[in-house]
Amino acid sequence: MRTFFSPAQLAHAPTRELHNGDWVPYAETPARAEAILAAIGGAEPAVDHGDAPILAIHDTAYVAFLRAAHDRWLAAEREGDAIGYAFPVVRRRPLKLDRIDALLGLHGFDASTPIAAGTWASAYASAQTALTALDAVLGGDRAAFALCRPPGHHAGADYCGGYCHLNAAAIAAQAARDADPERGCARVAILDTDYHHGNGTQDIFWNRDDVFYASIHADPATDYPFFWGHADERGEGPGAGATLNLPLPHGTSVDDYARALDAALGAIAAFGLDLLIVSHGADTWAGDPISHFALQTADYTRLARTIAGCAWPTLVVMEGGYALDALGANVASFLAGF
Amino acid sequence: MRTFFSPAQLAHAPTRELHNGDWVPYAETPARAEAILAAIGGAEPAVDHGDAPILAIHDTAYVAFLRAAHDRWLAAEREGDAIGYAFPVVRRRPLKLDRIDALLGLHGFDASTPIAAGTWASAYASAQTALTALDAVLGGDRAAFALCRPPGHHAGADYCGGYCHLNAAAIAAQAARDADPERGCARVAILDTDYHHGNGTQDIFWNRDDVFYASIHADPATDYPFFWGHADERGEGPGAGATLNLPLPHGTSVDDYARALDAALGAIAAFGLDLLIVSHGADTWAGDPISHFALQTADYTRLARTIAGCAWPTLVVMEGGYALDALGANVASFLAGF
Repeated sequence: MRTFFSPAQLAHAPTRELHNGDWVPYAETPARAEAILAAIGGAEPAVDHGDAPILAIHDTAYVAFLRAAHDRWLAAEREGDAIGYAFPVVRRRPLKLDRIDALLGLHGFDASTPIAAGTWASAYASAQTALTALDAVLGGDRAAFALCRPPGHHAGADYCGGYCHLNAAAIAAQAARDADPERGCARVAILDTDYHHGNGTQDIFWNRDDVFYASIHADPATDYPFFWGHADERGEGPGAGATLNLPLPHGTSVDDYARALDAALGAIAAFGLDLLIVSHGADTWAGDPISHFALQTADYTRLARTIAGCAWPTLVVMEGGYALDALGANVASFLAGF
Repeated sequence: MRTFFSPAQLAHAPTRELHNGDWVPYAETPARAEAILAAIGGAEPAVDHGDAPILAIHDTAYVAFLRAAHDRWLAAEREGDAIGYAFPVVRRRPLKLDRIDALLGLHGFDASTPIAAGTWASAYASAQTALTALDAVLGGDRAAFALCRPPGHHAGADYCGGYCHLNAAAIAAQAARDADPERGCARVAILDTDYHHGNGTQDIFWNRDDVFYASIHADPATDYPFFWGHADERGEGPGAGATLNLPLPHGTSVDDYARALDAALGAIAAFGLDLLIVSHGADTWAGDPISHFALQTADYTRLARTIAGCAWPTLVVMEGGYALDALGANVASFLAGF
């Protein structure tokens, strides 16, 4: 299974995040990617696909904001990483705003996703890694792994949040839709196995019937991102029924998880698909420092075998997972199932 | 001019707020009210009007949240003041959420409005102070002053923010509407002279044609609350045209301010009213530590005389103002104009 990664993905290194009322060290560190690389024995570099596939998912104004945000922060005579503190209520709309704090609120939804000097470079490279791995699958590989970091599934078309800035899985899904007819995919399904609901991916495809989104995650009543991922969210308009949320309680172990996975795969099969994208998080592991499921390292191979058994062309995109000592082994176990 | 204040309004004393990327000491201190009291020579106590007038403006679920939030924070084994870090995007809706951090996001829009042990007591007392001063005006006084603190104009029906938890001006406006026919007011206008746009008041009356909202404030392109108060916001539905926003640039001094005031008063006169409520902020003063207008202490008497010259029954409700050394003199200067 070919694996892709670009060293530019290590540039993004915020120092801290606001969490539960105070600063804590930023959990989504470059060391995460290094730990995974060490466990899987390296990766091929990404090929640059340019801005176009990013702009097919993300608003132009948002991408311009993300590129310039940290420079604007420094120009405002601030130190450290750019972080927002005020966010719109209800009437989110295009606005001409001249202050970085306002833009951070307009294009974000939490005070735990700083924009640092290297954020754009890493987010851009992470998207390119997903696009390069997609090429391998569109070229005939049964599966490929994009070691995306920073992750992407909390990022919407015009907002960042939850350690995510560009939605690599969504960008890859759209690129698969937009590829030339010989390689392109009319129908794409995204299976999100991260501990946290992928609100950004859901929002992006909320009204669409060509990309199915299924997520297995911690109940948002108790876990971030709180305001998305409830079981009654099923999509709207042409997308009605093309979103499936399967929230699970704290302490979920592999048997219950496997039942949810069967349900998700059944719904995806019923949808019908030319490509599966797995937004994979290893933060479902029992020892993850910010999560509360109970999967064991060996469980990931079992779950991946279940997915691989469907025999769909599959792109695996890395999302979360924060237990540095076990992250490499957990990801390697998952990839071993393919 | 009778003035009202309750000592319970001093209980709310958060220690810090997130602002421009880091913690800063909380600007909206109990000492603000003490400085104003010292300058104006004391106040009469508020009379308890109970929960009903608060619930006529604020959602039941929000009031229940506000009452219990700090206890829930402590029950979650957190220290200090409750503060949110994640906020909904677009699809704000009623949700069953079981974590205090989720509720703080559901009912807030910034990470700079902590809920401390005394917050409910002070916000409740602040609302009662406004209601008691309203009684004086409905009873025949030409004007009365409610020394509201914490302030209220950033609080919406179901959210806190901008140092505000219960919207005293909105609660008083609704109580004036709901008073018995002999004293009640069919039409109420709110004139907001705080440096910051009163987004909560605007949201509350956005669709209504019986309460006019006019605000003179710093351009939200550069100043909090950023996402409201732009000149094109005029109300909707039956409320179309009953909202007037007059944003002004940094450095505005009294002559330009007075022209905006004339425009606001002209629009209010055209609306027609039985009661004027002035949401008054003294943070338009040249030396205010978080603001950028250039009014001088003596200017407030001139501006207040212009308002008093309209001869409408007038309730003045205190909002912001953060220059402790000058706050008392600035408020006294304003009240002297009546």
